Amino acid sequence: MASMEKKAIVVGAGLVGSLWAVMLGQRGYAVDLYERRPDVRKSGFAGGRSINLAMSVRGWRALEKIGMAEVIGRQAIPMHGRMMHDTRGELTFQPYGKKGQAIYSVSRGGLNLELLELADTHPDVHLHFDQRCQGVDLSANTLHFRHEHTGKPSRVRAPLLFGTDGAFSMVRDSIMKQTRRFNYSQQFLEYGYKELHIPPTAQGRHRMEPNALHIWPRGSFMLIALPNADGSFTCTLFLAYEGKESFARLHTDAEVTAFFERQFPDVLPLMPDLLEDFRQNPTADLVTIRCNPWHHDGKALLLGDASHAIVPFYGQGMNAGFEDCSLLDALVDEYAEDWSSIIPAFSRMRIPQADAIADLALRNFIEMRDKVADPDFLLRKKIAARLHEQYPEFLPLYSMVSFSHLPYDQALREGQAQDAFFERVLQLEGIEENWADNPEVNRLFEQWWAGRRDVLQEQA
Amino acid sequence: MASMEKKAIVVGAGLVGSLWAVMLGQRGYAVDLYERRPDVRKSGFAGGRSINLAMSVRGWRALEKIGMAEVIGRQAIPMHGRMMHDTRGELTFQPYGKKGQAIYSVSRGGLNLELLELADTHPDVHLHFDQRCQGVDLSANTLHFRHEHTGKPSRVRAPLLFGTDGAFSMVRDSIMKQTRRFNYSQQFLEYGYKELHIPPTAQGRHRMEPNALHIWPRGSFMLIALPNADGSFTCTLFLAYEGKESFARLHTDAEVTAFFERQFPDVLPLMPDLLEDFRQNPTADLVTIRCNPWHHDGKALLLGDASHAIVPFYGQGMNAGFEDCSLLDALVDEYAEDWSSIIPAFSRMRIPQADAIADLALRNFIEMRDKVADPDFLLRKKIAARLHEQYPEFLPLYSMVSFSHLPYDQALREGQAQDAFFERVLQLEGIEENWADNPEVNRLFEQWWAGRRDVLQEQA
Repeated sequence: MASMEKKAIVVGAGLVGSLWAVMLGQRGYAVDLYERRPDVRKSGFAGGRSINLAMSVRGWRALEKIGMAEVIGRQAIPMHGRMMHDTRGELTFQPYGKKGQAIYSVSRGGLNLELLELADTHPDVHLHFDQRCQGVDLSANTLHFRHEHTGKPSRVRAPLLFGTDGAFSMVRDSIMKQTRRFNYSQQFLEYGYKELHIPPTAQGRHRMEPNALHIWPRGSFMLIALPNADGSFTCTLFLAYEGKESFARLHTDAEVTAFFERQFPDVLPLMPDLLEDFRQNPTADLVTIRCNPWHHDGKALLLGDASHAIVPFYGQGMNAGFEDCSLLDALVDEYAEDWSSIIPAFSRMRIPQADAIADLALRNFIEMRDKVADPDFLLRKKIAARLHEQYPEFLPLYSMVSFSHLPYDQALREGQAQDAFFERVLQLEGIEENWADNPEVNRLFEQWWAGRRDVLQEQA
Repeated sequence: MASMEKKAIVVGAGLVGSLWAVMLGQRGYAVDLYERRPDVRKSGFAGGRSINLAMSVRGWRALEKIGMAEVIGRQAIPMHGRMMHDTRGELTFQPYGKKGQAIYSVSRGGLNLELLELADTHPDVHLHFDQRCQGVDLSANTLHFRHEHTGKPSRVRAPLLFGTDGAFSMVRDSIMKQTRRFNYSQQFLEYGYKELHIPPTAQGRHRMEPNALHIWPRGSFMLIALPNADGSFTCTLFLAYEGKESFARLHTDAEVTAFFERQFPDVLPLMPDLLEDFRQNPTADLVTIRCNPWHHDGKALLLGDASHAIVPFYGQGMNAGFEDCSLLDALVDEYAEDWSSIIPAFSRMRIPQADAIADLALRNFIEMRDKVADPDFLLRKKIAARLHEQYPEFLPLYSMVSFSHLPYDQALREGQAQDAFFERVLQLEGIEENWADNPEVNRLFEQWWAGRRDVLQEQA
């Protein structure tokens, strides 16, 4: 492939686009990175709609690849587990994994900024802001842009094109129209989300435990809070659009206050700007996007939300997008830069994995808003954690997703097998009391695990 | 609603669009019916890609409503069952329902022509051909068209808008872009289809049994043939795009001939134009399209393939589109022409039904290409037919779909319950021989049916 010009266009300079531009830049590619929005390094971020990132090992691995893990790690706040708040303000803590394991609260804006800065240090990576993609002519490898302020149109070409322009990707739209038998689906939840804010104390301290992801699970809806480095928390309310408890019933300040008094009394005193935030911040949608294939003719490829937007409930949206880049980068070596092989191979390999994390994320909404308050669920988590300590090979589903690099689809299948096992364990007599020392738990586990290992070996 | 102008625009003058224009015309609405293609009454049909229609009771009911059932009935050919051809040319006949019940082979082009003629008799229905819809501005109720030959643009408005412009609907595209939380999915099979042809004898007779739908089931692919009034058959080959037996392996005349000799030896002498047809007719795709909602703001509504394109294997695509019109027409009376209520109510009611027939159609591909050659499947069909005669209330799944007006989603649920019942029956000792007079079959049936009737009564 030495004959092909080492040149690429990346559309969308969000997290995945700027990371991928860095990876290409580090390989010596000339990259033109186009972004519809203004340069955040000058304009700052338009907040109010971004859930904080929960970075786990898949995200970290990509940052390690480009040498940025350390600088981001210094600003990140470890969250070792979920802190559940009931309606009386009582707290229950549930660790995510083993001692020392954590997911990390990272500012989306801050991370994006660092990635853009790093991209910009490469002399062959060129950043273009305020450029709205109008469409792609795939047969001619040509992209059309229009400047958001001047209206000036432009046309660019490159042998390689990457669409990292998010859930409502224009590049995907063009691929969909120009690719025969392109499978596509966009499915919205009947829920929206709204960002809220808990400021730091006057001393710049966190008003709640900082090393946890806080959840107020309320059955059909929930509030969550992730810590920021400045002592504040970014909170997100997930609530149905219509129905008895819904955004449709929260129009006036009095309605909002009454709702928080009833449902989240312990958080109300921590949110002095609740009413203003509630009025001013938009209510955003939750969408799952799937498509197949992710590419056109082995020369145009979609990455991140553009090909697999997922709901945020597993904290894996960014992690999955970053893993896209790590895996694709590994294929570039494996296929010695033969892009016409790399791109279809990546699409084939990655689609079932992306489908699996999309399903897991949808399922986790129910877990977070409802099951985390269920004694059976908490008991299962405790038994799983103990088995994980006794048998380190055994990874509970959450650990497979958040603390391992196991392909998501394999994690999903393992999780389903675990469901069947725990169903039997939870039926054991007196399990609520004797779970920690009932030898039957270990006997059942060893029997089940022996069979499971055989399946895993067959798959490998 | 007397204040609203009785005026509508219908985009797409295929089967559903022209039927719906007739129904609106009969209600005294002024209708502008736009169609991208030329007027078939002048240009004739561009064939080569349309599977013959298999009209069943849902389609007939709509034609009865507009007074056209008799004229179409005179040209339709009843097909009382499936005629299966094995690789040695041996035939097996399997009736679709009771004696006298049939689905009807109807020419798509002929039916479309009659519907257009009837629409044109209404002084307030205006037909516009060669007009390509460029988009819809839903806030202004405005549609943009461009004439296919002159290029002349035009802009029209109406208080009501119906999109009947097929699986790749431009109206749906506009609704999707202008409606928040619009769920959409397009899924292609990895199979294509190609139309072929068996001409009549020199005496104008059919070369095979005319009163049957012929199937050559071959496991992963199949050929079917439907009779035409002129003594010919329209045949369709359904085959994978890639793989061992696939269109990818049928490039040369020799490959096509060898394939037919191997797989369909009895049909080869009946197709003198096979090689020419195979070369000239396009290979078309098979897509399932689902969306939700089907409307925008209670004033723009999608009908037929535009909102629910399905694969052709249950012969229900046109029937479902025509049932859309019948059901919508009934709601117009029920809600006394209050369209802002009619349209959302129709969308809510009809989407689960359309989802069900989409699933049934996908499932029937496996049944037609594979299961119809399976002895267990044929045995089940025979037992079901006998029970249907003994207990007329009991309708096998095929009869619920093709010979009743039961909502498709209810038929799907009943079919699933029937699967469980027949699984037990097929395990009875010696059932292969004693199915017709084993009293245990009736005992099991009566027990199961008593429980089932309770469920049905609860649903009603």
